[in-house]
Amino acid sequence: MCLLDADESAHCVRVLRHRAGDPVDVIDGLGTLYHCRLSVASPKEAQAEVLSQEADWHAHPYFLTVGCCPTKNNDRFEWFVEKATELGVDVIVPLIGDRSERRVYKSDRARRIALSATKQSLKARIPEIAEPVSVREFVVGDSGGSGGFPRFSESGESSLRLIAYCFEDAAVPRVSIQEALAGFDSAAATSPLPRITVLIGPEGDFSPEEASLALSAGYIPIHLGPSRLRTETAAVTAVEAVYLSRC
Amino acid sequence: MCLLDADESAHCVRVLRHRAGDPVDVIDGLGTLYHCRLSVASPKEAQAEVLSQEADWHAHPYFLTVGCCPTKNNDRFEWFVEKATELGVDVIVPLIGDRSERRVYKSDRARRIALSATKQSLKARIPEIAEPVSVREFVVGDSGGSGGFPRFSESGESSLRLIAYCFEDAAVPRVSIQEALAGFDSAAATSPLPRITVLIGPEGDFSPEEASLALSAGYIPIHLGPSRLRTETAAVTAVEAVYLSRC
Repeated sequence: MCLLDADESAHCVRVLRHRAGDPVDVIDGLGTLYHCRLSVASPKEAQAEVLSQEADWHAHPYFLTVGCCPTKNNDRFEWFVEKATELGVDVIVPLIGDRSERRVYKSDRARRIALSATKQSLKARIPEIAEPVSVREFVVGDSGGSGGFPRFSESGESSLRLIAYCFEDAAVPRVSIQEALAGFDSAAATSPLPRITVLIGPEGDFSPEEASLALSAGYIPIHLGPSRLRTETAAVTAVEAVYLSRC
Repeated sequence: MCLLDADESAHCVRVLRHRAGDPVDVIDGLGTLYHCRLSVASPKEAQAEVLSQEADWHAHPYFLTVGCCPTKNNDRFEWFVEKATELGVDVIVPLIGDRSERRVYKSDRARRIALSATKQSLKARIPEIAEPVSVREFVVGDSGGSGGFPRFSESGESSLRLIAYCFEDAAVPRVSIQEALAGFDSAAATSPLPRITVLIGPEGDFSPEEASLALSAGYIPIHLGPSRLRTETAAVTAVEAVYLSRC
């Protein structure tokens, strides 16, 4: 038996006008779809009886974390959240960079967008929208180093960490994201769920200090092709490259 | 010597506050960048003296036409126009399908978006936003058949025509857009500017009649991966697939 929260109950009973006995599909937001029969058609707390379930429903064959600096214009970042959710992403981390114009970010709106995009695109797992962290904190925590963000720890052979950085200094050679993914795909062929992390900087790019910190943490510098892309377009292009390379 | 139109003159002189003698870069919208010196700083009709020019400035190595049915929500289609322009597209044709909810489309707003995205992403060629046509008209005209849209004619060995169709009937086998492009890339290796056309249907998909018309006209049925994508996300994914496969 499963209980729908207030929002979903209202949507199920008031908007979709479901009645007791109707078949309804319910997701737990963690990857499982439940085929149910509505037992209590309450617009405040609907109840449904589980008939069968499908684990990893419409799951994608990778675990993708995108750390991206929110744009000055909030709509653009939220648009990225919607598109990344439709395509397939697991964790989105709003990053505050040295050169970020936006120093604070409230993740709640993006979470609502991720929820509705998850339902709209028929997925069962809602991407996590993390609380914002600084680029430095994320890179250190994510590097498998001490402390930081163990939950984002991507250490291990089947993990790939990429940083899309404009690198004005030609000293640092970059590969295209397609090349980086192609090399990784063969290496991680044995891994059931290869972990990929991509960092996208703010309009003003990462600072040289943030970039060298990422490189020393094992991030591979990549480019996203010859076009000059807005921050949110670069972030979607990274998600598209992963999606197209593995689907 | 080049003349800036009223909008560009105002932007150059009022917004960017350029004065006579300042170096300014001007594009003709057809692919050429002109390095100039502002000679007349008039906010109505500025004039600039051409010092040097670069043809095919920041051009992409393909000629991409996307025929896409405008979404019910105009913002979503216009967002696609902006993103496709940033990545690289040549012609966008708003299509009216049998199942389109939007039966009329005004291309003017999209043209303004394409112009500003062209300047913002440092390109010299502004994508053409065509007047809307029906899917049937476009497919016939585009098939290299008689009349229709000769300007969109993509006949010839170095052209690839794709239709992203959900094909509820499993009778029609589809390849992924990546597979279609990979096969084409080798075939068109000799072509200087391979022509690619992709058709994206409305929320309700193409009608079976439109689909069979396209197939008989030589369109290759493709899919865009396992995720269920909104119309504008599918259109951007097609542009990303071409961009990532050829850049």
